[in-house]
Amino acid sequence: MTHTLAIGPYNDDEKQGLTRELSPIYLDGPASVANLDAAQREAIKAVAYKGHHAFGATEMDLLPNVGAVANYGVGYDAIDVKEASARGIKVSNTPGVLNDDVADLAVAMLIMQGREMEHASAWARSGKWAEQGEYRLNRKVSGGRVGIVGLGRIGREIADRLAAFKMDIHYWSRSEKDTPGWTHHADPVSLADAVDYLIVALVGGPDTEQFVSKEVIAALGSRGVLVNISRGSTVDEGALLDALESGAIAGAALDVFLNEPKIDARFYALDNVVIQPHQGSGTVETRAAMAKLQRDNVLAFLGAKELLTPVN
Amino acid sequence: MTHTLAIGPYNDDEKQGLTRELSPIYLDGPASVANLDAAQREAIKAVAYKGHHAFGATEMDLLPNVGAVANYGVGYDAIDVKEASARGIKVSNTPGVLNDDVADLAVAMLIMQGREMEHASAWARSGKWAEQGEYRLNRKVSGGRVGIVGLGRIGREIADRLAAFKMDIHYWSRSEKDTPGWTHHADPVSLADAVDYLIVALVGGPDTEQFVSKEVIAALGSRGVLVNISRGSTVDEGALLDALESGAIAGAALDVFLNEPKIDARFYALDNVVIQPHQGSGTVETRAAMAKLQRDNVLAFLGAKELLTPVN
Repeated sequence: MTHTLAIGPYNDDEKQGLTRELSPIYLDGPASVANLDAAQREAIKAVAYKGHHAFGATEMDLLPNVGAVANYGVGYDAIDVKEASARGIKVSNTPGVLNDDVADLAVAMLIMQGREMEHASAWARSGKWAEQGEYRLNRKVSGGRVGIVGLGRIGREIADRLAAFKMDIHYWSRSEKDTPGWTHHADPVSLADAVDYLIVALVGGPDTEQFVSKEVIAALGSRGVLVNISRGSTVDEGALLDALESGAIAGAALDVFLNEPKIDARFYALDNVVIQPHQGSGTVETRAAMAKLQRDNVLAFLGAKELLTPVN
Repeated sequence: MTHTLAIGPYNDDEKQGLTRELSPIYLDGPASVANLDAAQREAIKAVAYKGHHAFGATEMDLLPNVGAVANYGVGYDAIDVKEASARGIKVSNTPGVLNDDVADLAVAMLIMQGREMEHASAWARSGKWAEQGEYRLNRKVSGGRVGIVGLGRIGREIADRLAAFKMDIHYWSRSEKDTPGWTHHADPVSLADAVDYLIVALVGGPDTEQFVSKEVIAALGSRGVLVNISRGSTVDEGALLDALESGAIAGAALDVFLNEPKIDARFYALDNVVIQPHQGSGTVETRAAMAKLQRDNVLAFLGAKELLTPVN
């Protein structure tokens, strides 16, 4: 009997690694757990989980002997950790290895927004550059005021990069951190009020739902740009769309959305938004490192060792 | 009689500043100097120059009393400085104030290329994200090996930013510079051979023509990406196009081209090139600073003071 369940949309390289090291049963999503027979379900000790569909009490009931759920990704909001903890199920994620990629994307999205790089590219490619000459002037990014919402590992990587762009760095976090003179704000509205660029780097889940509220977005003001690389849930998306449509803020650059990949069609009608398809950690190098860390957590559990990167 | 000639495509803000401080005669390009009458030409003491059309002996012959040509932009390859020096004409440019913008654009272009951000955006906007799911994996940028060709003021700004992306920094310059442990290469082929990303930050003009030669491009190899924010003339553009078409290098990100804005149509057919319409310094803030520095150079000359930023 196989002891591991691999749930989610794994690519070929990832499946090769999983099969080699864990010989799991593969399922496309948590809903398919119910299709396994009782003997298969009872044999499962560990789950390698990937995806954004909820994995909670229902699935845990069906897997009575599961002791660990190893999530692929740093954000583990799809997994009901409270429920897992109550049952003594250990949960792990894949932190650290993806910070660089997510920070790279955040910085590039911010500059693309300020410098209108997609529009400028389209201007050149459409022949307008040749016909009409210079592209319109846009907005300087270096030296600007930026606010990071959540100065965890990824927020810190973003701030470290933007410091090299001579930006005046402000941040919100629950407690003041040890920084090179960056300005702590105890209130996200105060943070948004102090900056032109606001970058959301929160953990997802119920505790941060709509943390970037209508009031925070309003405080950003008409020169304000919102960048989100965390989760769609952290922002009041309706208020964001209203602000983008009315010009209450200048623009946004978003890698994450509610209901992705079927995102709100209002985003597509806006020309002041840089849209990325949730590819923050989407490089060959980083996804291989994430897949390895996930497998190593499962192997640690099956070998009766401590999980490498536990979250509960 | 007015003493100043303002030559080139100035925008409304720039014209307002020029008129206020210098009341110049405006010409759209150097070819129009010949249309002025002799008395007007003889009265001209200083030229405020903007543009990429050649300004040399012909124009200087027509302006017998000109003593200074103040260029708008850091690159002054349109002006024949040798000819100016021989006649005792002082030439100035606008260095410093545009370094940040050009470096910002270079970094964002590099990440856009590595992370396929334009393709990913199109994937989302075309509905493919909603229909087909995740965008394909691409390439990690942070931690990579980058080579800067020309470690002048702009090259240095680019390198300082990329150091915050934990990149392994190599550079070519005529002499070794004082750096935080970056690797100097005396030969551009050796530089290209050592890195995956090559960023061209040379001064334009005859001395650097095709400095990034066919051999340099070949040494970059199949994982190589070329970024150019200097001048189209610094790169063997035919060899670059061949290498991009054949896959001899992985891609390019270009803000400058030969014959811009009517660039080689082969670029438009490539999907591994990020194209920008020479907008390196194209922000409201920086162009205002460049215009002011140009006027200040003219005013210094007319007031019999030293030019602020002379080049000869």
